[in-house]
Amino acid sequence: MSIDHLVPVTTGTSSETVMADFVSRHVGPAGDDVRHMLEVVGQPSLDAMCDRAIPGAIRSESPLRVEAAASESAVIEELRGFASRNTVLTSLIGLGYYGTVTPPVVRRNVLENPAWYTAYTPYQPEISQGRLEALLNFQTVVTDLTGLDVAGSSLLDESTAAAEAMSLMRRASKAAADAVVLVDERLFPQTIAVMRTRAEALGLPLLVTDLRGVTDAESLSAAADGKAVVGAMVQYPDATGELVDWAPLTGAVHEAKGLVTACADLLALTLAAAPGEWGADIAVGSAQRFGVPMGFGGPHAGYMAVHRGLERQIPGRLVGVSVDAEGHQAYRLALQTREQHIRREKATSNICTAQVLLAVMASMYAVWHGPAGLVAIARRVGALTAGLRGALVDGGLDVETTSYFDTLTVVVPGRADEVVASFSDRGINVWRVDGDRVSLSLDETSTPATVLAVLDGFGGTASDDVAARAVESGAHGIPEGLQRTTEFLTHPVFHAHHSETAMLRYLRRLSDRDFALDRGMIPLGSCTMKLNATTEMEAITWPEFANLHPFAPAEQTEGIRALIDDLSGWLCEITGYDAVSLQPNAGSQGEFAGLLAIHAYHQARGEGHRRVCLIPASAHGTNAASAVMAGLKVVVVKTAAGGTVDMDDLRAKVEAHRDDLAAIMVTYPSTHGVYEDTITELCELVHEAGGQVYVDGANLNALVGLAQPGKFGADVSHLNLHKTFCIPHGGGGPGVGPVAVRSHLAPHLPNHPLAAEAGPDTGVGPVSAAPYGSASILPISWAYVRLMGGEGLRHATQMAVLGANYIAARLREHYPVLYSGHDGLVAHECILDVRQITAETGVTVDDIAKRLVDYGFHAPTMSFPVAGTLMVEPTESENLYELDRFCDAMIAIRGEIEAIRGGEVAVGDSMLRHAPHTALNIAGEWDHPYDRTAAAFPVGVHAADKYWPPVSRIDGAYGDRNLVCSCPPPEAFEG
Amino acid sequence: MSIDHLVPVTTGTSSETVMADFVSRHVGPAGDDVRHMLEVVGQPSLDAMCDRAIPGAIRSESPLRVEAAASESAVIEELRGFASRNTVLTSLIGLGYYGTVTPPVVRRNVLENPAWYTAYTPYQPEISQGRLEALLNFQTVVTDLTGLDVAGSSLLDESTAAAEAMSLMRRASKAAADAVVLVDERLFPQTIAVMRTRAEALGLPLLVTDLRGVTDAESLSAAADGKAVVGAMVQYPDATGELVDWAPLTGAVHEAKGLVTACADLLALTLAAAPGEWGADIAVGSAQRFGVPMGFGGPHAGYMAVHRGLERQIPGRLVGVSVDAEGHQAYRLALQTREQHIRREKATSNICTAQVLLAVMASMYAVWHGPAGLVAIARRVGALTAGLRGALVDGGLDVETTSYFDTLTVVVPGRADEVVASFSDRGINVWRVDGDRVSLSLDETSTPATVLAVLDGFGGTASDDVAARAVESGAHGIPEGLQRTTEFLTHPVFHAHHSETAMLRYLRRLSDRDFALDRGMIPLGSCTMKLNATTEMEAITWPEFANLHPFAPAEQTEGIRALIDDLSGWLCEITGYDAVSLQPNAGSQGEFAGLLAIHAYHQARGEGHRRVCLIPASAHGTNAASAVMAGLKVVVVKTAAGGTVDMDDLRAKVEAHRDDLAAIMVTYPSTHGVYEDTITELCELVHEAGGQVYVDGANLNALVGLAQPGKFGADVSHLNLHKTFCIPHGGGGPGVGPVAVRSHLAPHLPNHPLAAEAGPDTGVGPVSAAPYGSASILPISWAYVRLMGGEGLRHATQMAVLGANYIAARLREHYPVLYSGHDGLVAHECILDVRQITAETGVTVDDIAKRLVDYGFHAPTMSFPVAGTLMVEPTESENLYELDRFCDAMIAIRGEIEAIRGGEVAVGDSMLRHAPHTALNIAGEWDHPYDRTAAAFPVGVHAADKYWPPVSRIDGAYGDRNLVCSCPPPEAFEG
Repeated sequence: MSIDHLVPVTTGTSSETVMADFVSRHVGPAGDDVRHMLEVVGQPSLDAMCDRAIPGAIRSESPLRVEAAASESAVIEELRGFASRNTVLTSLIGLGYYGTVTPPVVRRNVLENPAWYTAYTPYQPEISQGRLEALLNFQTVVTDLTGLDVAGSSLLDESTAAAEAMSLMRRASKAAADAVVLVDERLFPQTIAVMRTRAEALGLPLLVTDLRGVTDAESLSAAADGKAVVGAMVQYPDATGELVDWAPLTGAVHEAKGLVTACADLLALTLAAAPGEWGADIAVGSAQRFGVPMGFGGPHAGYMAVHRGLERQIPGRLVGVSVDAEGHQAYRLALQTREQHIRREKATSNICTAQVLLAVMASMYAVWHGPAGLVAIARRVGALTAGLRGALVDGGLDVETTSYFDTLTVVVPGRADEVVASFSDRGINVWRVDGDRVSLSLDETSTPATVLAVLDGFGGTASDDVAARAVESGAHGIPEGLQRTTEFLTHPVFHAHHSETAMLRYLRRLSDRDFALDRGMIPLGSCTMKLNATTEMEAITWPEFANLHPFAPAEQTEGIRALIDDLSGWLCEITGYDAVSLQPNAGSQGEFAGLLAIHAYHQARGEGHRRVCLIPASAHGTNAASAVMAGLKVVVVKTAAGGTVDMDDLRAKVEAHRDDLAAIMVTYPSTHGVYEDTITELCELVHEAGGQVYVDGANLNALVGLAQPGKFGADVSHLNLHKTFCIPHGGGGPGVGPVAVRSHLAPHLPNHPLAAEAGPDTGVGPVSAAPYGSASILPISWAYVRLMGGEGLRHATQMAVLGANYIAARLREHYPVLYSGHDGLVAHECILDVRQITAETGVTVDDIAKRLVDYGFHAPTMSFPVAGTLMVEPTESENLYELDRFCDAMIAIRGEIEAIRGGEVAVGDSMLRHAPHTALNIAGEWDHPYDRTAAAFPVGVHAADKYWPPVSRIDGAYGDRNLVCSCPPPEAFEG
Repeated sequence: MSIDHLVPVTTGTSSETVMADFVSRHVGPAGDDVRHMLEVVGQPSLDAMCDRAIPGAIRSESPLRVEAAASESAVIEELRGFASRNTVLTSLIGLGYYGTVTPPVVRRNVLENPAWYTAYTPYQPEISQGRLEALLNFQTVVTDLTGLDVAGSSLLDESTAAAEAMSLMRRASKAAADAVVLVDERLFPQTIAVMRTRAEALGLPLLVTDLRGVTDAESLSAAADGKAVVGAMVQYPDATGELVDWAPLTGAVHEAKGLVTACADLLALTLAAAPGEWGADIAVGSAQRFGVPMGFGGPHAGYMAVHRGLERQIPGRLVGVSVDAEGHQAYRLALQTREQHIRREKATSNICTAQVLLAVMASMYAVWHGPAGLVAIARRVGALTAGLRGALVDGGLDVETTSYFDTLTVVVPGRADEVVASFSDRGINVWRVDGDRVSLSLDETSTPATVLAVLDGFGGTASDDVAARAVESGAHGIPEGLQRTTEFLTHPVFHAHHSETAMLRYLRRLSDRDFALDRGMIPLGSCTMKLNATTEMEAITWPEFANLHPFAPAEQTEGIRALIDDLSGWLCEITGYDAVSLQPNAGSQGEFAGLLAIHAYHQARGEGHRRVCLIPASAHGTNAASAVMAGLKVVVVKTAAGGTVDMDDLRAKVEAHRDDLAAIMVTYPSTHGVYEDTITELCELVHEAGGQVYVDGANLNALVGLAQPGKFGADVSHLNLHKTFCIPHGGGGPGVGPVAVRSHLAPHLPNHPLAAEAGPDTGVGPVSAAPYGSASILPISWAYVRLMGGEGLRHATQMAVLGANYIAARLREHYPVLYSGHDGLVAHECILDVRQITAETGVTVDDIAKRLVDYGFHAPTMSFPVAGTLMVEPTESENLYELDRFCDAMIAIRGEIEAIRGGEVAVGDSMLRHAPHTALNIAGEWDHPYDRTAAAFPVGVHAADKYWPPVSRIDGAYGDRNLVCSCPPPEAFEG
């Protein structure tokens, strides 16, 4: 569909063309604007432009076989149809997923507020202070509750967090290579399974056993089969509900120079002794029950906390406190040198996306309730559980769990299935542990009526007020020695916002400090910051999707699984692959899963020795880090002068590693923003040597409807639904990173021990805690595809390419466009080269990025994939007005640079170097050679609508030298 | 319930007290803060304070009989229960209410966004530029579509707008007192009924007849029974769907020096000749179908447009363009001297509340679709209607309507009931005109399937593509001479925001210019700007409430009516009255209804001559204007020195008017913010003279749970659900103004011709278009009462009183508190006297109000009820932090005033006079004697969170002298 093919509706009052459907709402430019842009780019039509830009050999010949676009109303109706096919029972399944009440003020003003959900990862900290504060609150919640020193700003889920802790212990350990990680057998089963998947790839020996008896060197050695010990992992309380005193084990492990990780429940920790207090080195877990719905498995925020000394080993993002140019306190991401975008294959982890939006929600749940409120909730849960246990025992039932918070395991010899079914008839899901035992977990939403229903389900009876009496008496099941006696959440932020008015204002204040898509373009190369339409977002907060437990019986989850089937089919059609798994809950997880599939494939063919993974120098850092996680050996392929893969070097490397070649990982179009002609040849070369071709789907927004990686030579790709398929970035997560494969790799996709339908029997095991990963946000991508239809998707891709080329065309004479293809065309993004400018004037990409804030923009991607450049990706959603506003700003900045070059201003005195300018700067003493208006109101900034950054340029190094990762005292903000 | 009675939950980590329920979320201060406030006020407890403040004679002795508070989750569940008892059919009923698609981006970012819905009326224009722009857009939509010159920024609904037009015509007419208003009999029936209610009260002769034959002086005279003519009212298209050419009638009426009002459908006007083009002087109607759900009758925006020359007669609010102190374009309310808060009984109308939130939505619908999009929607509706008509006629049915847009009347002799029932079985509501005819209206949501279902309902058949073919052919039923040929919505704003990204940013930009409750306190005396909780707001957007037609059969609306019954019962219990009507959709309507009930009561007793209404000098201006509307004669009672009603003057006035005394209207506690001791005596005096006592419920927030007007002597009150009962102010509406009465007045409450269940048979007729007024927002107030329970409501009242007294206590030494009662206590608001300051320094209340903007506050009420004062009402929802922030700001401002008094600064050079300061001011040339930081960042303003007004002080007079009430050209904003 080119723009001209859309049904035009001409009004009597204007000659403009109206596209009657959602496509015209999603795509920014229309009508005359498109014609103008084509003219500037020098191409006669969208089709002609794409024909020139994309090698003929890879272009799709037939249109996408995706249903025609439906209207927004129709899509909502269809989604309601899926929702109605889910059956939401009261879930007492537990195992890390619990009922919780999202504070309505938080749901509406965070989860349903574009100011929060359309924000990007806070790499530009000056314009991200709001969510950085919220994340610092999250870190404080985690450190306070776990009793440890430093916490990251979220991981993907509890099971992957546990797997990261396992890797961390190995990295931090000096033990021999064959030392084992001990895992208590009563960890959540999905966590054990995810750790196994990871450990196998790394060749790390795991030993799953009963650790409750380990109290000294002797019993430890017995448990470890005499091997040296890297560390031990325990669950607190464990899967059966038992709250074990792990101090003796911890002592023994420490004596053996090992570390101990506790998988701990945050709500339980309000009443139970903190892991840090009984000696754990690391705590991991989930913040789901802090106000984030179960959502059929996710997303929600996993967490990790460590004691001081391990903070440089912590995976994922860490928010820290630093100062700005005026010496005012300011937040930013700390210790970024640990991360994969810097350290590549030497990173602490391949984790890139976090779960920022969900971590924000969980932190706000803690802000809303405060410590007293959290304790009140926990006490109520504890008391109901105690009341339930008492009545069960009184009724003659055998309750296995003796020390507990919220979970009980009940022995029902031979009757487990029958009991589960009987509960189901009562509208309750309990967990079948095995044929003889069921377990159940109460939560914030449980009431005395829940307790009575459970008693009834076990065939017992009790007086109506057994539960109420338990609540009144303050009963609970936490043994004396394990009760918490220490304070937590003493910081004022957890005491100041308990009325809804106060909370509403706090949320508004924080979001107002940030720059998100609802203010202006975020032209981040490689990140595809496109529209997250309201209609796409609506279904995720519906109870039928939000309140499903991931391990609920399959017959209760028909609707969401049908939606997942639809989406999987569309993704296969769009990518040209044969099978897809939606389990990976971030792009990094998708990469890992894809590489595991490759390795498993080689292994299945008796070629498990193939471990070399070729990666071009320009690749995303995550690629290399993932390859290492998958047990592969990274070999870098050089970049040729034009930015393409150096084919000579590739041939040489393929030849050198012919026998051990596992795969090549490339991005297409390349991270240089060009459709490389050599892709077909590259695929052939690697295949011919027995390797597999992994195409990173980060740039899929340049391919949808135009070319299919699965058809032009690739064997596997991961996609980023939070890029191409409209899941909002949420300020740095959630993401979804499906892995798509050709049929020969399909048997090696992820599966799940608790959900046979979620993957192939022959699969590599789970890579995420939940069978379908972040299932509750999949309706977003489903809706996007349904709203666009095949033609609309193709049109969006063409327009994304046109937008990038328009910017390239307008800016080329001011900033060289580093790489381009035929007719000087780029793909969906372009790299502006600033190196010459820097050499001549001292003005850096950083200066330009910060100066863009003064103009009301989020900076493009800086220094990736080429240091000293800016990579710009406008996406199809930005209209001509915004594209021009950006180009005008960049051209004006070029003018400011010329003044420096001309010697009129010294770079150190320039607006560029002092950017961004805060309102406080402008109102204060002024000793700059430029005037205040020029600084704050450059061209294109409307006085009434100025975005003011809350802090000036932040000193990153200061924060790393003086690491503070929890809420600073309020006095720190004075002045 | 005093604060001490709430169940305390003590945590191990803190000694603070937690209230487990919503009450603690709604009420700002808790625990130690309450104790501190009581100490400052010098009262030992909340109960003791209220016992001192409120006369013993009126205090309630028993607690409110309202259900105990329910949790937020439970309330949502109960609301879902009501929702499930409504049955939403496809409505083709029409009659002014049509299916429409609310653009999702508008719903989420306006209707569900506190930045829009918690804003106040834009009386402080400098901090209301966003919604003023949106309202100017609304006015432009109305003037462009109607072809008239000036439109107001919304009226309450189409029927009251028509009644206002009728009054306007009378005011503007020089015809004799007995001249008639001619009304075409095919106006919507509810509109005729509302006009009759109004006309009867005013003694204005209405003549309802068939006006289609009126083409010249002779036929006009015949239609008018030979009387002189004030004007004529016609519907376009009319209730039967007929699009009549009213030009001949208009010519005849103009010749007779009368005016013509067209009740016109905005969507039809995109295709049909505009009323202004065929000569109408006034157009009224509804903007409901521009994206505002039917909502069982409301709220939505009524509109009125007039030709130049009548603009000073236009009722309600009018937004105009003016300039600020720097000469930049700025918006504000124009011609306020027409309004009742200025002109009292001489006002153009008693209208006070508008429908701002809904007018904003309707304007954004037009911005979203643009003229071409609106035409496309209208053409589709028109084509489907034409296709339907063709098929019906082909099927042998008698379709009465020949020229039409969307509505057809079908003759089905003797079978109307049967046809309606048969449609109902098909899930469609059509309208029973009479026993022989049904009518039906298509709308934006109609599809070819709708057309086929209708054909099927009539027992006809048609090929599947009859509708699709009609759409394709562009068929329609508008006759040649009535087709629109002129452009509309040519302003760029209607062409710039058609992508969702652009729209999202436009909405964000506008809301960011404004100051609403989500930023800080709005301490407006008499306006009760309390929390509008998310849980209260949630249900209004559910389709089961949003998509009900107000005239849907009663059996389909059980749920909403059960909710209304609950709410009515609670309001009776709270006020002590016996009956309530929720029909009045604004406080002014409630006043009018209450006074009508009084008059009808006198009349029923043969005392219809009682027409004198006593009104204290301090009353809201609306009181006097309403009395005039109800046909009463206003006699003012003086104020005594202490601010109370001058009882001697009252006695004298009662005596003087003993025989004609209809009523007294008083506010309690008085608008002076004090519980007057004399209220009981006042009631007795008036009753003894045969008069009725009307207590204005504006200050009910000071009474709930403490005293009941219906028990302490009053006969009738109107309430403001948008004050005491949490309906948000929406930037100046919607409001709901129920009228509550003692049993003797109950037979005289409003009723409705199309809904017998909505009022007593003996009622005074309808005062609003819909039987239950703004029904779709009643769940807000229902939820508030349910969430608070009787004890919580009482606690809220006590805390509102404490908050006002805390402010009075802290500020008394800086600004005299004008009136107070025992122990110096005020009620729920206090008046700060600035007159002495003004006399001594020249600093005015305006200066203080604008300077408060620099401090990050909305100003208190200015110069009401006493010129030269500020009236402060903090409400119970503001916590101690915010109360102190406000007091600190006021004290700091007092310090600034002292500097003027001390001669350090001239008032003309002061920060006060130049406030508010914009960012552009601060960045620009500076020749003030104070520095920029002092101006922009006074005490209490956090640098990162500064609210910047988008314009500086606005010159109101300039705007009135140079009246511009539609979108100015974009160039006007340059610079």
